[in-house]
Amino acid sequence: MKVLILGGAGMIGQKLAHDITKNGLGDDPQPDMILHDIVEPSWTGAGRPELLTGNIAANETAVTLAAQKPDVIFFLAAIVSSDAEANFKAGWDVNARGAWNLLEALREQHKLSGKTYRPKVIFTSSLAVFSGPYPDAIDDNFHNNPQSSYGAQKSVVELLISDYSRKGYVDGLSIRLPTICVRPGKPNLAASSFYSGIIREPLNGQQAILPVPDTLRHWFASPQSAVGFLKYAVELDFNRLEGRRTLNLPGVSCTVADQIEALRQIAGNDVVKLIKPIHNPDIANIVMGWPRNFHPERAIKLGFRSDKDFANIIQSYIDTEMSDSR
Amino acid sequence: MKVLILGGAGMIGQKLAHDITKNGLGDDPQPDMILHDIVEPSWTGAGRPELLTGNIAANETAVTLAAQKPDVIFFLAAIVSSDAEANFKAGWDVNARGAWNLLEALREQHKLSGKTYRPKVIFTSSLAVFSGPYPDAIDDNFHNNPQSSYGAQKSVVELLISDYSRKGYVDGLSIRLPTICVRPGKPNLAASSFYSGIIREPLNGQQAILPVPDTLRHWFASPQSAVGFLKYAVELDFNRLEGRRTLNLPGVSCTVADQIEALRQIAGNDVVKLIKPIHNPDIANIVMGWPRNFHPERAIKLGFRSDKDFANIIQSYIDTEMSDSR
Repeated sequence: MKVLILGGAGMIGQKLAHDITKNGLGDDPQPDMILHDIVEPSWTGAGRPELLTGNIAANETAVTLAAQKPDVIFFLAAIVSSDAEANFKAGWDVNARGAWNLLEALREQHKLSGKTYRPKVIFTSSLAVFSGPYPDAIDDNFHNNPQSSYGAQKSVVELLISDYSRKGYVDGLSIRLPTICVRPGKPNLAASSFYSGIIREPLNGQQAILPVPDTLRHWFASPQSAVGFLKYAVELDFNRLEGRRTLNLPGVSCTVADQIEALRQIAGNDVVKLIKPIHNPDIANIVMGWPRNFHPERAIKLGFRSDKDFANIIQSYIDTEMSDSR
Repeated sequence: MKVLILGGAGMIGQKLAHDITKNGLGDDPQPDMILHDIVEPSWTGAGRPELLTGNIAANETAVTLAAQKPDVIFFLAAIVSSDAEANFKAGWDVNARGAWNLLEALREQHKLSGKTYRPKVIFTSSLAVFSGPYPDAIDDNFHNNPQSSYGAQKSVVELLISDYSRKGYVDGLSIRLPTICVRPGKPNLAASSFYSGIIREPLNGQQAILPVPDTLRHWFASPQSAVGFLKYAVELDFNRLEGRRTLNLPGVSCTVADQIEALRQIAGNDVVKLIKPIHNPDIANIVMGWPRNFHPERAIKLGFRSDKDFANIIQSYIDTEMSDSR
């Protein structure tokens, strides 16, 4: 099996690649892997994935990658939300036109192969396709109405993947990931950064700023769950999708207060004291427009499994990122 | 006011252009008009619209049209559903890439104008963005999941128009029209053709074939309502859209039996006898997947008005297409 990871230098791309190297994918214990990204993906683990660098907004990149005829493509690459909002053309070029180019190049390979080549394409979509007003929990039939360029671009690619799949050119699935938490590493400029920061920094003995009211509710999955979702999507029999190639995934719905209480249970009161509430209306205004809870019935029926609760998400961070054996 | 009608040779484009010539648009009694289509639009009425021919899938067409800086653009042009399904690339190029090119060209004009140019773009979307299973009536928050390339293309353009509007480059609105009935002229190859045929042919003394069970329910608007929707969209204050730039429009929900009963009331039993039920499973299978009924609350609140009932739709055909004074 040949596996292509677009966005192979990113946090999830790297974790996915290392997991596949260690545990295989589907029934292949050691698939060939290509990691592609706009910067050269680093690699320190076992195995020898091919490391490629290029801009997926350029059509020749799409043509070159498709010519490798990967059996499975994890499409994780994207300009992030704030960047897509600030740079309108770049966002649409990378996040939508790049995906379209790739699908066209894959369709060409499908044709050249006498219609036998039909790769699995697993695309990471986002909660950003939604906007309020929301019901208490968003069900599988709730409409999308993105209020960011990033969300609109993800929505467009969902539609493309669905139609290219319906016609049999690829075999695709778009999965709308919950907000990934606890992200390892440093805080970044994303409005969501604090959701990881208020757990990660205190656990590492540092202060973290909480810019929103602790009553705010949101929808989370650990990086380990994200890797699990991506791998499970490859094993899933797509006939079970019944023509619906977009899935809201399961996650953990909790308030900031719930997050903090889980941290207290695991790490104690002194750690929790490192969280300093300093209201930031800019961040609060963005984050308060995000989904709070889902009923992802279809994904659960199909066998996708999330973290049990937020304590589980914290423990997953501690085990993966803080243990000596990592 | 300068008005551009893309799809100006089509049935709705022609009716819209003639209505604007006669009655004006918004507060302009005699706007300048450009009719553009892939074939040269015919013109027999009063007024002197500019008649242009070209392929909107070509970027130079988009650039040329945007350079005219129309104040209002009615985007009706599309490859029809069956054509988009049979010709995958042409469908995506015309129905989606063409619209994207135009939006990019309009954004360029917006930039060149010092951000003062911001045309109203009224895009005719379609019920084809939906697929079942349906609730009894589709509300404004029901998800889209197109099961045709045509529907996917319409969905993509909705997303583009919404995002270009949110950023202030254009001021757009996508309206999802009900199935237009009674279409004047001859039957065509569209699966929906019989919906008009079973009214139009008998009224003109000809037989019509009914290929589906008369219990089938669907969602209709007259061509006159469609023109009304398009004109009303131009008058509407878009601040009232509250960031949602896609609307399910009002229509008439009725079964084929209701259609036939309305015809009987208006034209008598002998006319109805010209309808011959001959089941066609190919057509039935397509049509049975279509939406049956809507609760288009937002559009109604915003002031969009549809035909009162199906009798009204038939009468509208008789008055417009069959009267001596037409």
